[in-house]
Amino acid sequence: MLGAIEAGGTKFVCGIGTKEGEVLDRVSFPTTTPEETMGKVIEYFKDKPIEALGVGSFGPIDPVLGSDTYGYITTTPKPYWTNYNIIGTLKSEFNVPMAFDTDVNGAALGESLWGAAQGVDSCIYITVGTGIGVGAMIGGKLVHGLSHPEMGHIYVRRHPDDPFEGTCPYHGDCLEGLAAGPAIGRRAGVPAGELAKDDPAWEMEAYYLAQALMNYILILSPEKIVMGGGVMKQLQLFPLIHTKLKELLNGYVQHPNLSDEKISSYIVPPGLGDNAGICGALALAQSALQGV
Amino acid sequence: MLGAIEAGGTKFVCGIGTKEGEVLDRVSFPTTTPEETMGKVIEYFKDKPIEALGVGSFGPIDPVLGSDTYGYITTTPKPYWTNYNIIGTLKSEFNVPMAFDTDVNGAALGESLWGAAQGVDSCIYITVGTGIGVGAMIGGKLVHGLSHPEMGHIYVRRHPDDPFEGTCPYHGDCLEGLAAGPAIGRRAGVPAGELAKDDPAWEMEAYYLAQALMNYILILSPEKIVMGGGVMKQLQLFPLIHTKLKELLNGYVQHPNLSDEKISSYIVPPGLGDNAGICGALALAQSALQGV
Repeated sequence: MLGAIEAGGTKFVCGIGTKEGEVLDRVSFPTTTPEETMGKVIEYFKDKPIEALGVGSFGPIDPVLGSDTYGYITTTPKPYWTNYNIIGTLKSEFNVPMAFDTDVNGAALGESLWGAAQGVDSCIYITVGTGIGVGAMIGGKLVHGLSHPEMGHIYVRRHPDDPFEGTCPYHGDCLEGLAAGPAIGRRAGVPAGELAKDDPAWEMEAYYLAQALMNYILILSPEKIVMGGGVMKQLQLFPLIHTKLKELLNGYVQHPNLSDEKISSYIVPPGLGDNAGICGALALAQSALQGV
Repeated sequence: MLGAIEAGGTKFVCGIGTKEGEVLDRVSFPTTTPEETMGKVIEYFKDKPIEALGVGSFGPIDPVLGSDTYGYITTTPKPYWTNYNIIGTLKSEFNVPMAFDTDVNGAALGESLWGAAQGVDSCIYITVGTGIGVGAMIGGKLVHGLSHPEMGHIYVRRHPDDPFEGTCPYHGDCLEGLAAGPAIGRRAGVPAGELAKDDPAWEMEAYYLAQALMNYILILSPEKIVMGGGVMKQLQLFPLIHTKLKELLNGYVQHPNLSDEKISSYIVPPGLGDNAGICGALALAQSALQGV
């Protein structure tokens, strides 16, 4: 039995599951102080015979093994959590192999094992919700380097009809600042979820997301692109993104996956649906068990 | 002894060298038709006792082992070379292990073995010359997926003082269209190499390249960035790029390598200098020998 923690900035989800990705039990509670929140986590796992534990976390985090701050949530602006040693706290309670990564890297791994990205060696998982985060698996491994990817903050070109200044506290009108849920809502004056399916806002959203995909494709060349998160429940976005992406690439990257016939099975919703996060943490636990 | 082929769109360089990256001999000739050019390649290696052969090629190419067109130069607009099976041609003459990749992936590997990126697990090699190409090593492996990276063609935001329409036949004002050598020259009305070191053109160039680096860092998180090619011989670009990059990131990615003290050893010229290309092909030969 594997243990999984989806450590989100708003809520934590803890669960147990099998090596086949089946979630057997789960609980959820709001993210408050580290002491209170981690107290509930420890309470949940205390009497469960887990063989390994996976943590997919909000960030930025330090996932680089051997680093002095490995296992920390690092420079988050979230009150109380800056430089919090989440893996250290768990290690002092549970003597099992652990894996620690971003929530989106976890989700990419989970989708590759049990979801929409099975059978490929490289994929990215994009969540578009209150923020924009992207996880990446390349050559069968989750991408780490200096740190972990932060692809939601790339700059994209502004839509000519968009005067909105953007919401990102670091970059103003980076991708997240222009295209995450709160940006759509603030630009429109109503929450994104209340906009009609044919509102022009979705064309603009697709324009921004397609630019991001173009960059991810040109830089990482993933074999599958999975798009989840609250905003991507607006399924009308998928065909709009497909069209805009093909316009932007303009035939430069020649691959059958980008053809009219296949693009809708290249850029897809999560196969694990709303379980993408917790299954991602489960996948991390499995990787810890295998010593990957 | 290893054999190396740097297959460029303008010229081919063939050489032999050691497993320590020392080039022992080399020849160079213009790229004409495949028959004539490959005839000279075969002639050069015919009587040399090479144990493996590495080919770093202009592209796009198909470097994906197991693909039907593995070893081909694919959709290049270069006359005569479209869908040319370069590895097939070499295999019919030489019965040694071969490795085939983009010239820039080869250079990234070469820099990681013998050059400026030694001791790291992930790096990128950027060439800024008649085009812009980028090779990437992540987790110790060169990046392949759907195909190979084509990072020179990402979109960047236009400089507010830049009315130039760009030179890319596919995308107009993508990065390559705005910032490769020919774009600098056409915008200025004189060849880039004739501009004074303090010409404002270099500020603009640094603005575009820094945007690209920001995206590469946020997406790939490389531990070292090596910048070569003709344009990067303008060494005044390095400090300009460092400054612009820090402005753009605005403190979002916190890492010592991005500090004022260390950024000039994070973003660096090639350790192998003008040998980056041929040593890259040598590094590919070595990887073929090791069956990597």
